Amino acid sequence: MRSEMGWSTADRIVVRGLDLPGEILGKLNLGDMAFLELTGRTPGANESRLFNAMVVTLVEHGITPSALAARLTYLGAPEAMQAAVAAGLCGLGSVFVGSTEGCAKMLYEALPDPKAPADLPALARRIVADHRAHRQILPGLGHPIHKPRDPRTGRLFEIARETGFYGRYCELVQLIAAEAERAAGKSLPLNATGAIGALGCELGFDWKVLRGLGVMARAIGLVGHLLEESREPIAQEVWLRVEEEASDHLKPKT
Amino acid sequence: MRSEMGWSTADRIVVRGLDLPGEILGKLNLGDMAFLELTGRTPGANESRLFNAMVVTLVEHGITPSALAARLTYLGAPEAMQAAVAAGLCGLGSVFVGSTEGCAKMLYEALPDPKAPADLPALARRIVADHRAHRQILPGLGHPIHKPRDPRTGRLFEIARETGFYGRYCELVQLIAAEAERAAGKSLPLNATGAIGALGCELGFDWKVLRGLGVMARAIGLVGHLLEESREPIAQEVWLRVEEEASDHLKPKT
Amino acid sequence: MRSEMGWSTADRIVVRGLDLPGEILGKLNLGDMAFLELTGRTPGANESRLFNAMVVTLVEHGITPSALAARLTYLGAPEAMQAAVAAGLCGLGSVFVGSTEGCAKMLYEALPDPKAPADLPALARRIVADHRAHRQILPGLGHPIHKPRDPRTGRLFEIARETGFYGRYCELVQLIAAEAERAAGKSLPLNATGAIGALGCELGFDWKVLRGLGVMARAIGLVGHLLEESREPIAQEVWLRVEEEASDHLKPKT
Amino acid sequence: MRSEMGWSTADRIVVRGLDLPGEILGKLNLGDMAFLELTGRTPGANESRLFNAMVVTLVEHGITPSALAARLTYLGAPEAMQAAVAAGLCGLGSVFVGSTEGCAKMLYEALPDPKAPADLPALARRIVADHRAHRQILPGLGHPIHKPRDPRTGRLFEIARETGFYGRYCELVQLIAAEAERAAGKSLPLNATGAIGALGCELGFDWKVLRGLGVMARAIGLVGHLLEESREPIAQEVWLRVEEEASDHLKPKT
Repeated sequence: MRSEMGWSTADRIVVRGLDLPGEILGKLNLGDMAFLELTGRTPGANESRLFNAMVVTLVEHGITPSALAARLTYLGAPEAMQAAVAAGLCGLGSVFVGSTEGCAKMLYEALPDPKAPADLPALARRIVADHRAHRQILPGLGHPIHKPRDPRTGRLFEIARETGFYGRYCELVQLIAAEAERAAGKSLPLNATGAIGALGCELGFDWKVLRGLGVMARAIGLVGHLLEESREPIAQEVWLRVEEEASDHLKPKT
Repeated sequence: MRSEMGWSTADRIVVRGLDLPGEILGKLNLGDMAFLELTGRTPGANESRLFNAMVVTLVEHGITPSALAARLTYLGAPEAMQAAVAAGLCGLGSVFVGSTEGCAKMLYEALPDPKAPADLPALARRIVADHRAHRQILPGLGHPIHKPRDPRTGRLFEIARETGFYGRYCELVQLIAAEAERAAGKSLPLNATGAIGALGCELGFDWKVLRGLGVMARAIGLVGHLLEESREPIAQEVWLRVEEEASDHLKPKT
Repeated sequence: MRSEMGWSTADRIVVRGLDLPGEILGKLNLGDMAFLELTGRTPGANESRLFNAMVVTLVEHGITPSALAARLTYLGAPEAMQAAVAAGLCGLGSVFVGSTEGCAKMLYEALPDPKAPADLPALARRIVADHRAHRQILPGLGHPIHKPRDPRTGRLFEIARETGFYGRYCELVQLIAAEAERAAGKSLPLNATGAIGALGCELGFDWKVLRGLGVMARAIGLVGHLLEESREPIAQEVWLRVEEEASDHLKPKT
Repeated sequence: MRSEMGWSTADRIVVRGLDLPGEILGKLNLGDMAFLELTGRTPGANESRLFNAMVVTLVEHGITPSALAARLTYLGAPEAMQAAVAAGLCGLGSVFVGSTEGCAKMLYEALPDPKAPADLPALARRIVADHRAHRQILPGLGHPIHKPRDPRTGRLFEIARETGFYGRYCELVQLIAAEAERAAGKSLPLNATGAIGALGCELGFDWKVLRGLGVMARAIGLVGHLLEESREPIAQEVWLRVEEEASDHLKPKT
C-alpha cells in the first residue's frame, strides 16, 4: 500500500513532494493547490489562470437541487455542517455534472492524439450523426436558460486563447455544437460543462478528474449557501410549504 | 424566501452581485472566489494572500480517516465519485476539524471587540485556568506529531505579518499556548487549526465559517485521493487485511 | 483489531454467533435482526413486539426535510440511489432526532438503577425545575402538531404494558411531562421520541443506540420516498419554484 | 406536487392509508413496514416471511468496505452518528450491491410476463451466450468465498418454496447459473444477490426497489457496527497502520 499524496514528521510536512510551509503556503492559491493535488506538479502561470477560471465557473449556480438538499440537511443537523455539504454533494451525479466528463470522454475518443492529423469537421459530423442515430444526448450541449449562447463558454475560450490553451479539442467541440444545431434545427449552445470538458482535454486531464472539478467547486459554493442559511434561512419554509401542498389531497376536509 | 447567492437570465449570470463571465472568470482565483462566497465581496490583495494560505493549509494531510473513508467508498461505487467525496467529508466533525471553530469561539468570547483595551496576558491566564478547572481541552493546542512546534503555525503567522493581519487575536492565542505549556509542564504547540482559528478572527469571520474552510479544502484533497485511488488502489487491500484480522478469533481453526 | 459482528468461510456465514441460513433466515423478522445487531442476542417474543413497534414508529413521517433532501439528491443522481438515502440521513441530527437520546440520557441520569428506591414525583419536579432554571428544553416533550396528545405515545405505552415493559422509566417520563405542563401552563405532550427514549431505557439500551433506531428506521422510509419520487416526482418542481422565488428580487425587471 | 406516503393532523397519523397507532404499531414488524412503504399495502403472511428473509440476508456481512468507511467517519464525528451511517451507505454502488438489481433487470427483460409460455432452458442458454459474446459479467453469479455454493441461496429458495413464491424467475436464474458454470468450466454459484434479485421478480418488485433493499438492510447493520466501534474501536488503529505503511517510502530514513 503506497500513497504519494504527502507525509509528515515532527518538523516537516510535505505535500506532493513540496514542503508545505516553505514552498506552498503564501505561494500557491487554492486553485493552484487543487492543480497540484490532481497532477502532482504546480501549474505554470497560464495553466494557473485557465485552471482557476474553470473551477471558479463551477462554484455557484444559485438555488440548485444540491444547494437545497444541503440547506434542508442543515435544518436538522446544524451542529454537523460537514454532513450538510456532503448531502449537497451526493446529488452531483449524471444529470447535472456528468456532462463535463461525458464531453471529455467523447473528445478523447474522437481525438486520442491531439497532434495527429485529423479532419475535424468530418469528425464532428460523424459524432453528431452517431449520437442522433442512437438517440443519445450530446454531452455539453444545450441549456434550459442560456440561449442562444451560454455566456460562460465564450469567456472561457477567450481565457483559453489568452493563455495559449485554445487547441483542437476546443475547435472540435465547437464544430460539434455547430453541426448539432444544424442537424437539430434548433439552438443547442455549447454550455459551460462542455467548454470545461474540452479545456480539461487541452490540459491533458484524465476524464475522471472532471467530475471532481465540479465536486470541489460545489463544496465551496455549498459552504457559502449554508452560511447564508444560518443567517437567512429558507429551508423550513420550503419544507412546510411542500409538506402542506403534497399531502393536502390526503387530509380530511373539515 | 430570498437568497443573495446569485441569479441568471438567458444572457447573464451574476454571482454575489458580480457578473460571472466579465468580473469573475480570469480575475479571481479559487480562493478569492471562496472569499466572495463567504463574505459577499472580493478580497483585497493582502486578504487574498492570507485567505488562500489558510485554506491551502487544510487541503492535504496524507492518509487520514477521511481519505480512507472516501477511498473505501469509491471501491464500492466508482461510478459515483461525488458520493465518495461526500463520505470523506462526513467525518470532519468535532474530533479533527472542530478545533478551528472552537478556537475562534474562545477568542471571540474573550475579546469581542479587538480594538477595546484588554490585558492580553491576564486574559490568557484566565482562559487557561478556566479550561483546566473544568478539565476542558484548549482548542487548537497540541499535536500528536508536530512537537515542539507545528511548522505551519509559524509560516501562517509570518504571512499574517506580511499582509498586515497579525493582530490581537494572534497575540492572544500565542499567549494562551505559552501559558498552557507552562501550566501543563509539557509541550502544547499552537497547531495549524488554532492558528487558522485566530486568523479567522483577524479577518472578522463568523466562527461558523471556520469549519466550512476545512470542509471546502478537504473536498479538494479528497478528489486528489480518489484520483490516486483510481490509479494505485489501496482500499481493497485495507479492507481484506482488516476483515481477516478482525474476525480471525471467531473463525474455526482447522 | 477485533469485531464480533460476523464471519464467513466457504460454506458458513455466522452473524453475531448465529448461523445465518440455519438460525436467522426465515426465523427472525427485520426488527428482530436489528435487535440482534444491537444487543448480540435474539429478542424474546415480548421484546420483539415492543422493539418492532418502536422502530416502526420512526419509519415514515411524510414529507420531512430529510425526505426532501433525499428526493432533491435523487433528481441529480438517479443512478446512485444509495447516495440519495445517505443525503437524507445526514440531516437526522440534534433538531429532529436527537430528542430520543436526550430523553434517555436524562432518564438514566435521574435513575441509574431502575430497581433502587426512588421518589419519582420528586425526581420529576427536580428535573423540570432544573431545566427551567437553565432555560433548557426538556427532550421528548411538546409537538408542533400533535396537541394536546401525541397519538403514538399512548399506543406505545399500551404495547409496553401488554409486553411487560412499562416500568419506572415510563412512569418517570410521564410524571416529567405532567409536571412540565403544570409549570409551563401550556400543553407539552410527551411525544413519540420521548416515549421511545423511555422505552429504550426499559430495554436497557445504551442511549447512543437510540439515535441509531431513528437512523435505521428512516433509511427504510427514505427508500419508500425515492421509489415514489421515481414514479411521481416532485423534486424538480420544488427546485424551480424556490429558485424563482428566492432570486426574484435580484433579477432585473423588464 | 403530491405524495401518498402519509399525513397527520393534531390527533391522527396515517401512513400509506393506515392509521399508524391503530393499524400499524404492534401489528406490523419492521420488515412488514418496509413492505408497506414499498408497495402501499401490508404483506400477506407468506409474503411477510419471504420478504423479511430477503432483507435480513443483507443486514450484516462483517467487516466490509462500507462498515469500515462508517467506522472511520465515526472516529472523526462521533457526535453525528447519522453521518457515519450515511458515509457507509455511499459505497453501496455498482460493485457490491448493484448485482441484485442487475439480476432482476436481466430476468424481467428475458421474461416480461412470468405466465406467458417460455422455453426456460433456451432462454438461459441465450442469456449466457449473449453475455459471453459481449464479455459482460452475469449479475448475481460467482462469489470470492462461497464456493461451490452460497449457503444463503439454498435457504432463500427453500423459504420461497415454503411460502409459495418459488416460480419461474427462480427456475430461470438457476438455469442461467448452471449454464454459466457449464460454459465457463468453473464454479459460478448463484449468490445471495442473484437469489434476491430473482425473488424480487417473484414478488413483482420494480428492479429499482432492489438496490433499496440492500440500502435499508445495511443501514441497520451499520448502526450495529457503530455501536461496536463506540465500545471496541478499530478505526484509529486501521488509520494509523495504513498511514504509516502507505507513506513509509516517502519519509526520510534516519
